[in-house]
Amino acid sequence: MPPHVTTLPSVGPSKLSLRTKQHCLNVKQLMNQESGIIYLRGALNILRDDTDVEMKFRQESNFFYLAGVNEAGFQFVFDFSSHVSYLIAPFIPEAEKMWKGEPDTVEEMLSKYDVDQVVYENDLSRLIKALNPPTVFVLDTTDTAPIANAVSKEKIDSTSLKPAMYESRLIKFPWEVQLIRKVTHISSHAHITLMREVQFGKNESEIQALFEWECARNGAGYQSYLPIVASGKNAATLHYTHNNKWLNRNDNPHMLLLVDAGGERNCYGTDITRTYPVSGTFSPEAKAIYNIVLKMQQAVLDRLRPGTMWTEMQNLVIRILCQELIRIGILVGDQDEILKLGLTRAFYFHGLGHSVGLDVHDVGGRKAGVFNCLGEEEDDIARSHFLLDRPLEANMIITVEPGLYFNDVSLNAWTGFPELQKYFNLELLQLYRKVGGVRIEDTVLITENGYENLTIAPKTVDDIEALMAATHA
Amino acid sequence: MPPHVTTLPSVGPSKLSLRTKQHCLNVKQLMNQESGIIYLRGALNILRDDTDVEMKFRQESNFFYLAGVNEAGFQFVFDFSSHVSYLIAPFIPEAEKMWKGEPDTVEEMLSKYDVDQVVYENDLSRLIKALNPPTVFVLDTTDTAPIANAVSKEKIDSTSLKPAMYESRLIKFPWEVQLIRKVTHISSHAHITLMREVQFGKNESEIQALFEWECARNGAGYQSYLPIVASGKNAATLHYTHNNKWLNRNDNPHMLLLVDAGGERNCYGTDITRTYPVSGTFSPEAKAIYNIVLKMQQAVLDRLRPGTMWTEMQNLVIRILCQELIRIGILVGDQDEILKLGLTRAFYFHGLGHSVGLDVHDVGGRKAGVFNCLGEEEDDIARSHFLLDRPLEANMIITVEPGLYFNDVSLNAWTGFPELQKYFNLELLQLYRKVGGVRIEDTVLITENGYENLTIAPKTVDDIEALMAATHA
Repeated sequence: MPPHVTTLPSVGPSKLSLRTKQHCLNVKQLMNQESGIIYLRGALNILRDDTDVEMKFRQESNFFYLAGVNEAGFQFVFDFSSHVSYLIAPFIPEAEKMWKGEPDTVEEMLSKYDVDQVVYENDLSRLIKALNPPTVFVLDTTDTAPIANAVSKEKIDSTSLKPAMYESRLIKFPWEVQLIRKVTHISSHAHITLMREVQFGKNESEIQALFEWECARNGAGYQSYLPIVASGKNAATLHYTHNNKWLNRNDNPHMLLLVDAGGERNCYGTDITRTYPVSGTFSPEAKAIYNIVLKMQQAVLDRLRPGTMWTEMQNLVIRILCQELIRIGILVGDQDEILKLGLTRAFYFHGLGHSVGLDVHDVGGRKAGVFNCLGEEEDDIARSHFLLDRPLEANMIITVEPGLYFNDVSLNAWTGFPELQKYFNLELLQLYRKVGGVRIEDTVLITENGYENLTIAPKTVDDIEALMAATHA
Repeated sequence: MPPHVTTLPSVGPSKLSLRTKQHCLNVKQLMNQESGIIYLRGALNILRDDTDVEMKFRQESNFFYLAGVNEAGFQFVFDFSSHVSYLIAPFIPEAEKMWKGEPDTVEEMLSKYDVDQVVYENDLSRLIKALNPPTVFVLDTTDTAPIANAVSKEKIDSTSLKPAMYESRLIKFPWEVQLIRKVTHISSHAHITLMREVQFGKNESEIQALFEWECARNGAGYQSYLPIVASGKNAATLHYTHNNKWLNRNDNPHMLLLVDAGGERNCYGTDITRTYPVSGTFSPEAKAIYNIVLKMQQAVLDRLRPGTMWTEMQNLVIRILCQELIRIGILVGDQDEILKLGLTRAFYFHGLGHSVGLDVHDVGGRKAGVFNCLGEEEDDIARSHFLLDRPLEANMIITVEPGLYFNDVSLNAWTGFPELQKYFNLELLQLYRKVGGVRIEDTVLITENGYENLTIAPKTVDDIEALMAATHA
């Protein structure tokens, strides 16, 4: 008997159909430049510390956006005057071919990638000298050593390219939407499998491994970020990635499991969180908390369309959260007063969402995501793409991820202020602490008239309990 | 119906029982130093390129050997005079605890790790000044910035520690043997699952994913190296890691699959290769080649014991290979003449084995392993630990991995010399090229009287075909 019953057909790595040349042209247009070249250097293979252990390769996102190549050692040139793109291929010595295999031929590269010409790296200097560009646009992170002898330092502009790249990456092309839809469906399916399979007696690490396997066997061999598999109290730790606790019924028979994980395919990722009871049935307290978060999320989803301001959505969920926490009695007092004091931040202390694409906290959305609450230093370029600063547009892909947490560090800090204690029902709070935390996160596409929810894993209490009933007696 | 039938009990991350203090004392003894301290800095969390995507953490191997900590941001001090070990813990700001969780307390660290004292990083300088060591021993790769203001540059010795570390790591302690035995059993089980599950119509990537899942769900959540899942001709590429081809029966109904993969648990890894027919049945040509490699391996295994010289084993397998290739008719001529010309190197062009431990090409064995054939630059320290230069000793853990490949780059080069062509039966060679490549690799422990084969996946033609028969009609 085969130990694994495969219910989906095998899906291998996809045939790439990314029209990256369009990305180049779009970046050019956004830069409003008629001449010059873009030069980018792709990622190299990395060995771990002082060893010969090669790390799993992942292309640098901006390079992949323009060149579409997910292999090590490539470089890329795009000429604004002629609109010709040049893929610069590494030179592979004969002896290395015995170890690494025959590299693609020029013809194979031209058919695999959306580039106009392939040049080997020993011809890069000659190419750049021949193009003789007035300006070479690079990212502030680009290593320009390979072109140092072909272009003078004064011609290198390391500031103009990034804002245009980020603007271009924020609004997705149809082929990007298609890839992210696919990987979001694959990842949703993996979340569904986890709901079926989770049981007391398992370890968080095994659940993480199952998620990665379900993604990989369906064609998403990378994870978009380190999975968060957080049971019980761990769910209140936003970036919990230890994933090494046992799901022990004696700790809490009503234990919730929060899984925040998304696969990656062709460098495009997704971001999904589901929270559900290990037993298959929500306790009354867990259900109350869960439904508050679901209500927050649904309120935002109902308002998603071009023109929606994200700041308004953030205010909206905080109002709902405040109102609901007063309704169930955890917060006590006048709603406006509580909102003014910001007391909901004791329970919900991260952003409502962020852009998703080649990076999980993608350009434009990155600083608007969970990270800006930590008071990270600001970044002018990222800020100009703040989701907070501009209305939503069609073909943005973003997460909607409200949460509600009983985080000891946070609650102890907030309830530690004597003048704030009267707003908290401390006894009731104690009862709810065992819920741990709930986050519900969907990755959605903004469309011309509204949105498409790319995430297809169930999320109502009834749907989750019905799904889990088959495997949870 | 659950999609996965779990046939083994759940196994989570192991409780660490590494007696790392003994490692420190052993290194001290090997250095023959009575005073001074060792200072090491552990690995930090790494973000991918210009993003906030955190990479999966893996401790630096030498740090793990002495400190036993597989978390980011730690440092370590061992005092030769007092034999006291100090774990230097990172300071975690309160706000970060909401995101990353409460770090271990000092008591928890003292119970988890085999260290004598825990000191927070803001006290490191004070500690070093108080110890006032005549010498601070570091690795040549150690970043000494954190102790720069506590010790003068002249006191830092970056050459004496490494040879002693490498010597110590080469001969395994019982708890290391136990860990490697466990991860080798887990990985053997994963290879067995692959033999059952492999089918035409699957993609190499899915087979890789299955291997990783089988390891992870049994407690080996890391891979010791990038898995090689190579079907057909790809098996002749030694470090083939694309793992993206479809297993297509029309390409070759007798296709072999070579899987070189091993899990890692608590930073200790293993290294196993199995090669078998996708159909479940070896073709006559594949069986002939396979049995040659098996004979090469068995000849070495039969001679493993303390005192055995690895160079003799390398010569032994080359003699057997030559004799067998003459017997089946691929090589033609006098055996001694062919050996003298080195013609077997057309078919077998890597080392016979290497040490295994915290790194897959572990210290001592690294340069003696597959890599030294590439003509890599030599490294005096590694050379002093060459498996080639010294007899085997009890408690070494090494691989035995002969191979036989029909690699086009290699064969075309060797048969391209007009004066060598008479030694090759080119017609027969053509027939055998479709076999691709065979490698059989076990990880074994040298014992007082011989060896223990830690690898328990089947490897005779009969055993493999019998195992695969159940799932391959």
